Amino acid sequence: MLECVPNFSEGTRGSVMDAIQSAAASVEGARVLDRHADAVHNRMVLTIAGTPGPVAEAAFRATARAAELIDLNVHRGVHPRIGATDVVPFVPLGATSMQICVELAARVGRRIAAELDVPVYLYGEAARRPERHRLPDLRRGEYERLKNELASNPDLAPDFGPARVGSAGATAVGARLPLVAYNVTLATADLGLANRIARAIRESNGGLPGVQARGFRTADPNVVQVSMNLLDTRRTSIWSVFERIRAAAAERGVSVAASELVGLAPAEALVDVARQSLRFDRLDAESVIETHLLEQALD
Amino acid sequence: MLECVPNFSEGTRGSVMDAIQSAAASVEGARVLDRHADAVHNRMVLTIAGTPGPVAEAAFRATARAAELIDLNVHRGVHPRIGATDVVPFVPLGATSMQICVELAARVGRRIAAELDVPVYLYGEAARRPERHRLPDLRRGEYERLKNELASNPDLAPDFGPARVGSAGATAVGARLPLVAYNVTLATADLGLANRIARAIRESNGGLPGVQARGFRTADPNVVQVSMNLLDTRRTSIWSVFERIRAAAAERGVSVAASELVGLAPAEALVDVARQSLRFDRLDAESVIETHLLEQALD
Repeated sequence: MLECVPNFSEGTRGSVMDAIQSAAASVEGARVLDRHADAVHNRMVLTIAGTPGPVAEAAFRATARAAELIDLNVHRGVHPRIGATDVVPFVPLGATSMQICVELAARVGRRIAAELDVPVYLYGEAARRPERHRLPDLRRGEYERLKNELASNPDLAPDFGPARVGSAGATAVGARLPLVAYNVTLATADLGLANRIARAIRESNGGLPGVQARGFRTADPNVVQVSMNLLDTRRTSIWSVFERIRAAAAERGVSVAASELVGLAPAEALVDVARQSLRFDRLDAESVIETHLLEQALD
Repeated sequence: MLECVPNFSEGTRGSVMDAIQSAAASVEGARVLDRHADAVHNRMVLTIAGTPGPVAEAAFRATARAAELIDLNVHRGVHPRIGATDVVPFVPLGATSMQICVELAARVGRRIAAELDVPVYLYGEAARRPERHRLPDLRRGEYERLKNELASNPDLAPDFGPARVGSAGATAVGARLPLVAYNVTLATADLGLANRIARAIRESNGGLPGVQARGFRTADPNVVQVSMNLLDTRRTSIWSVFERIRAAAAERGVSVAASELVGLAPAEALVDVARQSLRFDRLDAESVIETHLLEQALD
């Protein structure tokens, strides 16, 4: 059992999003568990789960459909991106090993390059160059940089596929542990504050372990977001990140308007919010009835 | 799939608790998911799950073992009780109907009465008299009252079994929806405060919908507990109960020391704590990866 959480550069046109989702859902044995779209990011995230073969096929079909329907030359959105299918992470669930996801990333990456003529970069645990491990590094300069420099800059040479981008751009394919994509909305129009808080909490600036963060504006001009990937909620929990942001915003007289999850989260990460906020001495995924039912069902 | 959450009047002697748990675990197809014991309550709660036949057999075997090993005449504890096996609730999970649990309660109740010579009261959804629907009513006066009055008071006539109690006392067998057994520990030795808060929040005194509550002392003389059954966490959530208790205690300058779950809780009830405490616009059991894996596994 594993999960694939591809991100597509379309968060506005419903027909395009439906077509991509349908392509993923057309594979028996793979299920689309969740779809999250944002018009300001102009981006859609699907969560697909199942066994390796069907999930790989679903990810490929969705990527192929996105390449037909999305033109990066006219795509605008506040979220950085390099391609129509921007990133395709494979994530081990349950007893599945990371190695399986790394192999799947290489296989699907090779196929995307060969059949769709799209440059593919392997990232995360599947990365073959250390500087491609982190997605923010890989995405620096975005599609526009690749369009200008890919043919001439050997540092940008893809792992698979051509050294040039068409309208579908390039795709990062990789393997990683489950992460929690978590946003906190602040009741202020001040994007600078969101950015300052993001800089203060992200690991790359010496902040919280396993936290990637950026400030974003939203569809509502009165609020801004601190948008995060929590790479290891055992080290930095959803609750502790919320508390840190809440306190930093309160110092400027700004309150938290809402929290938002992009995609799904492991039971453990959400139960841990209950543990911390209500001061449970002991509370974890084993406290949840469904966890035991799942173990029983998988026996 | 269903759950049985029997309560036994033993929370001190490890060998007795182990023997009862082993009896429940000896049935193939039934699993003991959780054991919670408290020495001050002198009480143990098992959570057993599986298909109806095996769960019923496991509940019966544990009840039989408890009848052999526990003598109510020498049992002392702060929690009200009527028998060695005090209460045996059957709880539907997933697509299982309440009707199956009601029928199971009647079948197991009849067997306990016939084979163990123990008076059995049907309660909850399985109750055959309206005044036996609520457990607190059924338990009023406890074992000692039954010992004195059962033979002579027709109101106390059991649904099954003899109109007299032996050392194993009587047992309430019933069916109910999943409930959350939730305790909040207050950093005070003042049992009166815990009792006043319990009275203020419980439904029977006009408090919060679906809340049963009592104050209890604990093994630590410096703290007391508000002990609750939350019968419908969609109407009164764990978070809202915590907030209500926290505020009431704070008025007296008392802080909350900890939260405690007895047994397990549905994912929905715990995820809802995260939703409320971190102000998610949308967050429910469908936000949890494992919920989808379980649906897929049960397909």
